Amino acid sequence: MQPTRRTHPAGRHPERLLPSEPQRRRIARELYEQVADLPIVSPHGHVPAALLAENRPFENPTELFITPDHYVTRLLHAHGVPLAELGVGAEPLSEEQARRSWRILCEHWARFAGTPMKYWLEDVLVGVFEVDELPDASNANALFDHLGERLRDPAYLPRALVESFNIETLATTDDPLSTLEHHAALRDDPAFATDVIPTLRIEAAIDPGHPSWHRNVTALLAGAGGDDDVESYLAAIAERRRVFARHGAVSIDCALEDARTAVLPRARLAELYLRARRGEATPQETATFRAGMVSELARQSHDDGLVITLHVGSLRDYDAGLHRQYGPDRGCDIPLTTRFAEGLRPLLNEFGHDPAFHLVLFTLDETSWAREIAPLAGFYPSVYAGAPWWFLDEPEAILRYRSAVTGSIGFGKQSGFIDDTRALCSIPARHDMARRLDSAFLSKLVSEHRLSIDEAGSIIRQLSYELPRATFRLGHFGH
Amino acid sequence: MQPTRRTHPAGRHPERLLPSEPQRRRIARELYEQVADLPIVSPHGHVPAALLAENRPFENPTELFITPDHYVTRLLHAHGVPLAELGVGAEPLSEEQARRSWRILCEHWARFAGTPMKYWLEDVLVGVFEVDELPDASNANALFDHLGERLRDPAYLPRALVESFNIETLATTDDPLSTLEHHAALRDDPAFATDVIPTLRIEAAIDPGHPSWHRNVTALLAGAGGDDDVESYLAAIAERRRVFARHGAVSIDCALEDARTAVLPRARLAELYLRARRGEATPQETATFRAGMVSELARQSHDDGLVITLHVGSLRDYDAGLHRQYGPDRGCDIPLTTRFAEGLRPLLNEFGHDPAFHLVLFTLDETSWAREIAPLAGFYPSVYAGAPWWFLDEPEAILRYRSAVTGSIGFGKQSGFIDDTRALCSIPARHDMARRLDSAFLSKLVSEHRLSIDEAGSIIRQLSYELPRATFRLGHFGH
Amino acid sequence: MQPTRRTHPAGRHPERLLPSEPQRRRIARELYEQVADLPIVSPHGHVPAALLAENRPFENPTELFITPDHYVTRLLHAHGVPLAELGVGAEPLSEEQARRSWRILCEHWARFAGTPMKYWLEDVLVGVFEVDELPDASNANALFDHLGERLRDPAYLPRALVESFNIETLATTDDPLSTLEHHAALRDDPAFATDVIPTLRIEAAIDPGHPSWHRNVTALLAGAGGDDDVESYLAAIAERRRVFARHGAVSIDCALEDARTAVLPRARLAELYLRARRGEATPQETATFRAGMVSELARQSHDDGLVITLHVGSLRDYDAGLHRQYGPDRGCDIPLTTRFAEGLRPLLNEFGHDPAFHLVLFTLDETSWAREIAPLAGFYPSVYAGAPWWFLDEPEAILRYRSAVTGSIGFGKQSGFIDDTRALCSIPARHDMARRLDSAFLSKLVSEHRLSIDEAGSIIRQLSYELPRATFRLGHFGH
Repeated sequence: MQPTRRTHPAGRHPERLLPSEPQRRRIARELYEQVADLPIVSPHGHVPAALLAENRPFENPTELFITPDHYVTRLLHAHGVPLAELGVGAEPLSEEQARRSWRILCEHWARFAGTPMKYWLEDVLVGVFEVDELPDASNANALFDHLGERLRDPAYLPRALVESFNIETLATTDDPLSTLEHHAALRDDPAFATDVIPTLRIEAAIDPGHPSWHRNVTALLAGAGGDDDVESYLAAIAERRRVFARHGAVSIDCALEDARTAVLPRARLAELYLRARRGEATPQETATFRAGMVSELARQSHDDGLVITLHVGSLRDYDAGLHRQYGPDRGCDIPLTTRFAEGLRPLLNEFGHDPAFHLVLFTLDETSWAREIAPLAGFYPSVYAGAPWWFLDEPEAILRYRSAVTGSIGFGKQSGFIDDTRALCSIPARHDMARRLDSAFLSKLVSEHRLSIDEAGSIIRQLSYELPRATFRLGHFGH
Repeated sequence: MQPTRRTHPAGRHPERLLPSEPQRRRIARELYEQVADLPIVSPHGHVPAALLAENRPFENPTELFITPDHYVTRLLHAHGVPLAELGVGAEPLSEEQARRSWRILCEHWARFAGTPMKYWLEDVLVGVFEVDELPDASNANALFDHLGERLRDPAYLPRALVESFNIETLATTDDPLSTLEHHAALRDDPAFATDVIPTLRIEAAIDPGHPSWHRNVTALLAGAGGDDDVESYLAAIAERRRVFARHGAVSIDCALEDARTAVLPRARLAELYLRARRGEATPQETATFRAGMVSELARQSHDDGLVITLHVGSLRDYDAGLHRQYGPDRGCDIPLTTRFAEGLRPLLNEFGHDPAFHLVLFTLDETSWAREIAPLAGFYPSVYAGAPWWFLDEPEAILRYRSAVTGSIGFGKQSGFIDDTRALCSIPARHDMARRLDSAFLSKLVSEHRLSIDEAGSIIRQLSYELPRATFRLGHFGH
Repeated sequence: MQPTRRTHPAGRHPERLLPSEPQRRRIARELYEQVADLPIVSPHGHVPAALLAENRPFENPTELFITPDHYVTRLLHAHGVPLAELGVGAEPLSEEQARRSWRILCEHWARFAGTPMKYWLEDVLVGVFEVDELPDASNANALFDHLGERLRDPAYLPRALVESFNIETLATTDDPLSTLEHHAALRDDPAFATDVIPTLRIEAAIDPGHPSWHRNVTALLAGAGGDDDVESYLAAIAERRRVFARHGAVSIDCALEDARTAVLPRARLAELYLRARRGEATPQETATFRAGMVSELARQSHDDGLVITLHVGSLRDYDAGLHRQYGPDRGCDIPLTTRFAEGLRPLLNEFGHDPAFHLVLFTLDETSWAREIAPLAGFYPSVYAGAPWWFLDEPEAILRYRSAVTGSIGFGKQSGFIDDTRALCSIPARHDMARRLDSAFLSKLVSEHRLSIDEAGSIIRQLSYELPRATFRLGHFGH
């Protein structure tokens, strides 16, 4: 093996991410080859359905790769590039601005060494756009032109890309009030084979501390036609769940700062609801209501079978100035220590044994993987250990995750890979990365005679395809 | 090296768990061979003394391998198998039920891939029962018959197994009120060479929050003949310690949710004692009394030299329904974040320098290994870093443990391997696993020239034999 | 490769700490060789300036290697050696005492196996003192004589050693009231090329809970000539900063139990100041004032550009008896769980975007690396992830650090290596260890085709030389 020299982006090497030790590499390669071409199942992510329904060409490389991707803008910002200089929030960008932003990224390319952003971008540039040199200041302009040209080619329209990526199921994440018209349109198109399904993003409808809660509740009640009381409110949520399920949804997503749950008597929930609606709830009451509503979501899953994904432990919009200027979700989430064990106990004692219920736990505090999430998934039939997410969705952390949870729960209670991305073009690169890393992890177990190669072959197929389907009950819902 | 194919259980391969890189494997094998046949020292575990004293044949494979082992039943439960279907709590099982449970385990065998349960079971099946195929639905019945036949052979009686396992010392864990008659009987049998020693499990006698505390205290006082005051209570505990020590005990075990300790004035302890006995103690007072009693245990160790093992940080009996139906310790412990530094400060400031005192710290929160346990063991002569326990007693976590603590404290303040098991047949498999993993860890240090091979050879012998003896003062007590 | 046998200390092997797998070793060696001889930049450490200014011969091996080094005395203490037996606190030692202490260390040498203390000491003994056998009881006396002879040789005077170590910049850590006369003297010596710069250690001047706070504030005010109010107090601190900067300082160091900050209205700060000065502040008010002052330090950095290093999360002087007998900083720090995200939010919201401000975060709770420190450094231009410190400055933890932070932030927001040591002779061994480990880490990325060898070559040079300079703004201040 000769180490790669700089003219080749990492995306080029066929054995990238596989371990260097020759025996392990051979085993890993044997495993990887079994799954490299399996269809992609993406049961949780953030590609907008409108992008596919409208199917308009991407404007330019900047609006494809930079401004919407806070993984990228965050690190440029950390190196002193103001977001305004990149054009964040100012889309659509002028050609001049787009070109300038692209150049900034190219100039900072070396700053991304060691990050998955660089790995994914290079994989996309090589694999999708046929670029074969590393971006830098000298080739920024030429690359911008080359990529722009491709983006005007019909083969690079959003739907064409999705089809070329071999994506079988693609879940979006949607506002509780969404009309889901784009999903309906995509489903009605017989020429488009990918199953694009919505996900009900729920916290803005259950957390009175959320800035949109009041507006959302009012709209939900208006839609469902009930009184302003907790029964109508719960019924309105159940109705939205049914609508989402009719459009193909298999899950509800809930992103909260902590994992507290409570099972409240209906009278207590009703009282807190009214206090919250009147704006009289104390912070403690707001938290109690939210904790109670997480359990109500689980209760409703008994009837409609929707999976609940919990994304817990991020101080969102940490920087007040950034939030004021650009709004939410611009890359300044900062993780917190998270306590799943105490938090989930009420919910799990009540609903954890329900065979109709699946709860997938995602954390930004990796210490909870071995300490709490695996022990919970290793006892409750309903609980699944969600794949590494956000800051933890990178090679080193993915391998730490496998090391942390497998001893407790084997592979069958792990969620399989979840890309959770809004960067459409990166989807195949992310799934491919996961398949390579899982092959690498399994090659260790095989080479140390902890698993046979046949056992590992079965597991790599499960992790790549079967487990995400089983965790999200895709079979159950007929997808 | 050819990767193992599925017909061979992992337990077959002579180099299992050793690293794949050829130089490291050679070194690891050289180290492992130095300790593979050393006698087993098991200073903390849960095999019942009655099992050995009565020495009756095991009923069937299910009551040997499944129903009493919550490591196994827990994961079957997580895959949707109700404990009742396995016969948990319904022992003795009918032949039909036992056979059905065994079949369920065999059908789920692949679900255990990657877990130590599968590794240990295969090692036992191969090494003790001469099975040489992987269990599955097709061979479940035949295996059940094969194993049942072996269990009727006198070579598979409990004492015969212990002797064939080359166990030098085997500690049990016993109720504070235990008569220890089985230990006496075993000691009086000149034909049985293994030193079976009791351990005083103490939390039910010091924690007024424990459901049995009142009953235990009343019985302790009745046995010792004192008034119902703190002096008689402490004297009664000291007397039980003396009785245990006379029966060979070297340690007291204390399992608590947190590591809080306090050194209380005797008058304060007396007052809290009376309030607790009258049922008037607040939760805060209960916690303070318990914290004070942990320190009193350390104070008593100055006189009798008994080692204290602290197992901290588990929410025991997390699931209320399971606890109602099956009672405690059925596999639904969920770990908590644990703070040793603040908790132990009062105790260590008072007793941490006492040369007659050893305190062995076990955690389910592995973040405390490097952050708190190693720094404490690296300063206080009394403190030892306990081996990975429960969910953490598996290959990946064991290697993380060595990586976490060795830089701070070297090897001499690590406890050496502790099996902590109630699964008698797994004892040699567990000790063998630890010896292999320690050889693997040391092979890294040797191959990177951080230790010489001679230094590593001395360390592997310490970890396998000398350190458990030194940590538990086995030499001191004349065992 | 033949494993090293015991007669050779680890310090001998040219490929020590490099990975054993042949392809990775070749890559690691290629990278290491590029930086092995680069000058040492040490922007934070604890070598006393007086040692160099006075340039007196070291008394004996014990006062060089044992009594001042709590890394060493701590572990001997854990093995039952009272500090008094080592002569700690009784310096200058008689020849007899020094020889006895040295013998104790040699007898315990094997106890240090697996620790960086043994690695560094062997590297120093081999590389600086030309010892080529492992210390033990049999050669303790001869080694003591050999080392003593060297120490009387002018080539082993402190300044000669620093020059032979190729140290370009050496920062000391200094009391806020220090006259900095030794720094001035060293700067005035044209024959001494190393840039010895002071660091303002500030917590004793901003934390009213610190035992010296009152005395320090009184002295600061006396020096600056103001009233006893918060404006004069802040001005006096600013003035000390200017004096330190004039003597070459580039940073202020602040060691606190937690990371709480607050941005207080000046009137509130003034009120708390007065209450603290009158001894009337509650513990809560003391904590609030301290939290506010951390932000005031950041505010002042806007004007003078001094970098702030935060060393957070240690329960210092944990053992009351040790502290009473020997005073502070004798090795009994015990780390705590640390919460950077919530703690730093006020400060970072106000000052985190200031391009004149650098904040370097050090933790003893490694869980904060991936969870909080990297996400903060990956967003705020001001924040840098400080290198592993104290218990974490050892090979396994250093590799865990790279694994934990690189995926989020790449390499450019890592501080590069910081030795943070008071053990002068160990400085080259520590920097060399870091360069070897970084080469080892990078060799993994290269061998797995995640980086090209050229990219890795650029990074190893940054980590070894450029990043510590950039993080501490050494270029900015003209060093």
